[in-house]
Amino acid sequence: MELPIGFRFAGVSAGIKTKPNTKDITLIVGERPLVAAGVYTTNQVVAAPVVLDRSRTPSATIRAIVVNSGCANACTGVRGMQDAETMTELVAKYVACGERVKAEDVLVMSTGVIGRFLPMEKIENGIREASSQLREGMNGFIDAADGILTTDASRKIVDRRCQIAGKTIRLAGMAKGAGMIGPNMATMLACILTDAPLTPEQAQRLLRRAVDKSFNCISVEGHTSTNDTLALLSSGVAYGDKPLDAEAEEQFAQHLIQACIDLAIQIPDDGEGATHLIEIDIQGAPNDAAAHKIAATVAASNLVKTAIFGADPNWGRIVSATGYSGIPIETNVLRLVLNGHLLFDRGEPCKFDSKEVSLAIKSNRKTEIQLTVGYGTGSCRYWTSDLNEAYVRFNSDYTT
Amino acid sequence: MELPIGFRFAGVSAGIKTKPNTKDITLIVGERPLVAAGVYTTNQVVAAPVVLDRSRTPSATIRAIVVNSGCANACTGVRGMQDAETMTELVAKYVACGERVKAEDVLVMSTGVIGRFLPMEKIENGIREASSQLREGMNGFIDAADGILTTDASRKIVDRRCQIAGKTIRLAGMAKGAGMIGPNMATMLACILTDAPLTPEQAQRLLRRAVDKSFNCISVEGHTSTNDTLALLSSGVAYGDKPLDAEAEEQFAQHLIQACIDLAIQIPDDGEGATHLIEIDIQGAPNDAAAHKIAATVAASNLVKTAIFGADPNWGRIVSATGYSGIPIETNVLRLVLNGHLLFDRGEPCKFDSKEVSLAIKSNRKTEIQLTVGYGTGSCRYWTSDLNEAYVRFNSDYTT
Repeated sequence: MELPIGFRFAGVSAGIKTKPNTKDITLIVGERPLVAAGVYTTNQVVAAPVVLDRSRTPSATIRAIVVNSGCANACTGVRGMQDAETMTELVAKYVACGERVKAEDVLVMSTGVIGRFLPMEKIENGIREASSQLREGMNGFIDAADGILTTDASRKIVDRRCQIAGKTIRLAGMAKGAGMIGPNMATMLACILTDAPLTPEQAQRLLRRAVDKSFNCISVEGHTSTNDTLALLSSGVAYGDKPLDAEAEEQFAQHLIQACIDLAIQIPDDGEGATHLIEIDIQGAPNDAAAHKIAATVAASNLVKTAIFGADPNWGRIVSATGYSGIPIETNVLRLVLNGHLLFDRGEPCKFDSKEVSLAIKSNRKTEIQLTVGYGTGSCRYWTSDLNEAYVRFNSDYTT
Repeated sequence: MELPIGFRFAGVSAGIKTKPNTKDITLIVGERPLVAAGVYTTNQVVAAPVVLDRSRTPSATIRAIVVNSGCANACTGVRGMQDAETMTELVAKYVACGERVKAEDVLVMSTGVIGRFLPMEKIENGIREASSQLREGMNGFIDAADGILTTDASRKIVDRRCQIAGKTIRLAGMAKGAGMIGPNMATMLACILTDAPLTPEQAQRLLRRAVDKSFNCISVEGHTSTNDTLALLSSGVAYGDKPLDAEAEEQFAQHLIQACIDLAIQIPDDGEGATHLIEIDIQGAPNDAAAHKIAATVAASNLVKTAIFGADPNWGRIVSATGYSGIPIETNVLRLVLNGHLLFDRGEPCKFDSKEVSLAIKSNRKTEIQLTVGYGTGSCRYWTSDLNEAYVRFNSDYTT
């Protein structure tokens, strides 16, 4: 794994999470001012850090991003806004990087329980310690990736190295999220770093495009969080600051999309209690947005999700879910293939070996659902997790 | 319980359900031609009996309704349509009620597993037997109400007696449904009987109005079924066929709404594995439709539903769910009262005793969530069930 040039990382344990010795403060600092773009939750009930970051991106002068896990600083009113700003002031106070960092050039993310105030003394201690541990390279990056996790069972990172117009450009990303994962936004917290030379507007445009194919195509239970934030930070170092021409930008865009997809898929794959990653491919919809809506509807169905958990080829649940998304479909063309088995074709049920299909679900972590819904050219690939007792147990017992 | 005049009932076991000696064929017959209205699933993937009934209502000449449980006759293509028509022909063949019953004056409903063909020999035997057992009164009504159930843990019936302009009018209803319950349609199977004198258009109009306040305000997991059907059958006997004037119609409409609400609530209260009936009251929305959308969004959140199951006053999940329905809300007015406890007020968290609120959830079957979302006059009352391990276990193991 080769990291983008121009970043330093730290992740420390500040005691915000109840579990001792768990990292809960992450700091990422640019050697030079960074170009930054952000995509945020579309929930109207929006956490303080999201309000702050939204006002600070896109930008060409960002110097750092600070993340705490264990407390979302959401639904915390006036005091919550003050606390979010204070976090960026503390970064400005403690981080040394040649010149003085301004608080308004710091982004902040928070994740954890909604409705509690941040423990600001612990936060200050954590930011001070993280500032003293900043370093380049993989060990710091891994610490940072661990510091943003909450209910995640596994670390979520991605890296990508590409040659564009003879130059090497690097992408690296980290994400967190296993529950409260719903579509129609940038899901949960994620941060993509690159050394590609980008303008703020270019970064924003490319990030939005990548999100629509990645983080907006995943769900766990479809509950849109108050804190979802995806940031793209670019040091611009790789290219000697020469801007990307149109061809190079398109090449970079494809790499960014793939990096975002690789990172996003890790979220439903680690969905709380998940035993299956469910990949839903919609073909033949009126347009891509329509395909997305159908895919999201199928993905949101608890009946589909429990059937996959039970390795039950109960295809009627899948077929019926395509019919209530609000998007017109052609029921006489409707076709379902599950893990390669044709189960429903042109409005008629197919004969199949139920035990064989059940085994195909049971023996694979990934379940592939392919649905043809009409004659159109719209398509979407979407990912979700199955639903099982572990999810219910976990979420019945989260705050109390 | 006093039943509307003019109906005969039967419910028999025809061996369609795998569990032996379980009623699975229901027959309701009018002494005279019945006025009939119907409201059906909005799912585009629609079962054969729904297609048939849709073409036959509203009507002033319906003579009977036949229901089978255990097999939904959905996604069954051309053969499914033939089987649904055959069911109505069998009723015409076996039911004797003075004059000859025409097949096109029979309605049909089916519920059960999607994608299997009806066992027509068993269906014919069942219809023949039911025809021979038709009777007036409570015992027949109870048999009929039992014959439509599938995964229901309990029978769902309602009755209502009202005085309108000096005359007694009676309403009685039966419903089934515990899973695959989603809003935006008439949910699952239900049948309301009355002896009020109604024209077909009047019946249709009043039923639609009642549905919007009742069956369209419930969910279990939000999966819109392929078979949802609500029928209103009126014998017109009560009033000596004198039509209802405007004032009497409005009085009847209110009784019909309340009967539908009383029946509809029994569905999420019996949601698969449910330990709580959750009642969600939205106030202050831009209009009633907006309030309905917010309520449905809160009701659909697995995180809200698991929190209630766990008696966890995790109010952030409820407040955050109001923010992603797509309806504009006023976050600075946002207010949440749970079982009488104020938890969030005007965008700020309130101090409350978490143990006390948890106990208030745990010790009541019904959880009352009151949300004020703005300054508008739109409101909605909506009901759903909690989500727990029993639901998941049950639905992981339904067909196989």
